[in-house]
Amino acid sequence: MALVVHKYGGTSVANTERICAIADKVSLARQAGDSIVVVVSAMSGETNRLIGLAREITERPNPRELDVLLSTGEQSTIALLCMALEKRGVAARSYTGGQVRILTDAMHNKARIMDIDTARLDAELNSGKVVVVAGFQGVDRDGNITTLGRGGSDTTAVALAAALKADECRIYTDVDGVYTTDPRVVPGARRMKQLSYEEMLEMASLGAKVLQIRSVEFASKYNVPLRVLSSFEDGEGTLITREDESMEQALISGVAFNRDEAQVTVQGVPDQPGIAFGILGPVADAGIEVDMIIQNVGADGSTDFTFTVHRDDYGRAMEILRSTGDKLGAREVSGNDTIVKVSLVGVGMRSHAGIASKTFGVLAKEGINIHMISTSEIKISVVIDEKYLELAVRALHKEFELEQAA
Amino acid sequence: MALVVHKYGGTSVANTERICAIADKVSLARQAGDSIVVVVSAMSGETNRLIGLAREITERPNPRELDVLLSTGEQSTIALLCMALEKRGVAARSYTGGQVRILTDAMHNKARIMDIDTARLDAELNSGKVVVVAGFQGVDRDGNITTLGRGGSDTTAVALAAALKADECRIYTDVDGVYTTDPRVVPGARRMKQLSYEEMLEMASLGAKVLQIRSVEFASKYNVPLRVLSSFEDGEGTLITREDESMEQALISGVAFNRDEAQVTVQGVPDQPGIAFGILGPVADAGIEVDMIIQNVGADGSTDFTFTVHRDDYGRAMEILRSTGDKLGAREVSGNDTIVKVSLVGVGMRSHAGIASKTFGVLAKEGINIHMISTSEIKISVVIDEKYLELAVRALHKEFELEQAA
Repeated sequence: MALVVHKYGGTSVANTERICAIADKVSLARQAGDSIVVVVSAMSGETNRLIGLAREITERPNPRELDVLLSTGEQSTIALLCMALEKRGVAARSYTGGQVRILTDAMHNKARIMDIDTARLDAELNSGKVVVVAGFQGVDRDGNITTLGRGGSDTTAVALAAALKADECRIYTDVDGVYTTDPRVVPGARRMKQLSYEEMLEMASLGAKVLQIRSVEFASKYNVPLRVLSSFEDGEGTLITREDESMEQALISGVAFNRDEAQVTVQGVPDQPGIAFGILGPVADAGIEVDMIIQNVGADGSTDFTFTVHRDDYGRAMEILRSTGDKLGAREVSGNDTIVKVSLVGVGMRSHAGIASKTFGVLAKEGINIHMISTSEIKISVVIDEKYLELAVRALHKEFELEQAA
Repeated sequence: MALVVHKYGGTSVANTERICAIADKVSLARQAGDSIVVVVSAMSGETNRLIGLAREITERPNPRELDVLLSTGEQSTIALLCMALEKRGVAARSYTGGQVRILTDAMHNKARIMDIDTARLDAELNSGKVVVVAGFQGVDRDGNITTLGRGGSDTTAVALAAALKADECRIYTDVDGVYTTDPRVVPGARRMKQLSYEEMLEMASLGAKVLQIRSVEFASKYNVPLRVLSSFEDGEGTLITREDESMEQALISGVAFNRDEAQVTVQGVPDQPGIAFGILGPVADAGIEVDMIIQNVGADGSTDFTFTVHRDDYGRAMEILRSTGDKLGAREVSGNDTIVKVSLVGVGMRSHAGIASKTFGVLAKEGINIHMISTSEIKISVVIDEKYLELAVRALHKEFELEQAA
């Protein structure tokens, strides 16, 4: 008998009709003999409704109280799903984060899970009950309600699967798996059957928004097999596990991209220790997240430093950089907010040379200029003008034969 | 420095605008030096919305899960009110029933409070914070969420006031106090300044729906001074306390009435032990609540037995009684669902003879026939035809000079 954690997001439980459909799904899986823990999000729209109420009262809601408010969203869903399961003759029991005791740190609105007490859940599962747990929430040591931040329900599901030593954690969502690239850009994009955690992490960080990065990290750390599949259709979905032999056959798993990038460059700063910190410190202090960072070998005692930020932060980043640049005696500060990042991801590139040169060759053939290059063990990223995005993605997808069956 | 519990019901916190108005009120009271615990209900309409969702899923929601669902209503309100208080510079902290630890029995949907742990609340109050507690909810010994049933927020407020030894428990509502009778029937009805618990209990049980009976019983048991006052206007409201000398001046405090009554009579049943149980047992088994019960001295070895029920239960009560009547060999079973109950309430009538005869005299003068009479130490109730309700209430209100200042 397998122990399986199911996770259903907001659109999967958007209304009572869909909650009943999920109950049917869970009921079938239970009849087939699985032990089941279900993690649910708030009904879609509910979290925004609650945030709207808070904003009617104050621009800056008290973080502790915001968590008390937002956590009601998932609490409603667990109760409704249990009612629907009980109506189908499936014994079920709901648990809030605090009732399980999902212990988190005290960072309201973005808490991290510290520990999960499985005693009560184990007892419920042993007595044959389906356990329905509110995602996204926990309690700190003093019993204050905390939330894990948006998308935290994925993290709850994976953390529960790890703590309960579940056989699989299934993330039900509105897509039927992870694709070699965005099917809206490349109609021939193919659903992958299997993927490694590392590849999924690279894909996720590049805008393939199927899974939260945190939840994939968690799954990798505790080696929890993750499966992404559709709430609405039957299918195998995509299994994300530790890398195994069968994976090595594919050089490249997918082509990911991110449209929301902007690039900021400081030219001609002194090539000396502390310069990177001097540039990025003020940016980090302003709460701006930095994505790629590139510094090339300097000449004449000076160097150039480039990084990318989310396009929304471009204006503020430029402002900060101009002031920092003055202090550091930079020759120039420049930027570009019409760029995108395209990346090839695949564990296979570790053991195969020539992927990078092949990539650059494809882009050259299409006449696409590369602004920046950054590589990791299983990824090659290039920054190009946004007007070339579709062209680049399609050409790479075709060149690496991703449309063929793996 | 007084410790005061405020309770605001659903209409007082119906939307964020009203929640802000309540925050202003609490802020003022805090500035004036009071230590304050606020108990709030769900925003009006919210509980019905949640019940509606449950009913979309199943006709008979699992009681445990219904409590998990409904308790989110008050949880949202406490968070929003704390945000509004913090915005006004008032340090505030929300507590769910489980977080306070309001311990109840395990009777879901109608739990009773067993114990309240005041340690955390005392600490918050000592540090100068306003504590905002979710009404209507608690947890059982196993940590399951329970609710006290509709109107349970009043009970939460009184129980907290008792546990914290508060100086006063203020129930803010949409009326500005308790009146000598319904002002819609007698325009000259007067707001009472003060009232005893017993009088309030009699008034409440007769349809003056300002306070929940359970909360008045609780207040009486622990001698918590209760004050009913308006959420929307300033004013003294009505203070409900233990009976004191000043109260004895008024013979009669008010005239209460109940339009929802129906009367059922079994005539000519054997006058022998067990007959009352034989008649009422099946009625109670059917879950029908009985109000007045009257059995007169029997003659010829037989007796008549009459009781009143809510008008909605009239049909079912008659059906049950016909079957019981057959078994017991009753001469006749009859009923009337166009009757009402009118009651005079006042601690003063204890020490003053003649109130009853004066009452009957007033009704006789108006040509109103009395179907049933029932009395307690501080109450005289009569059942009359519903068409005479207004006439009877106005005549009694006038005769006992309730419009004059006390």
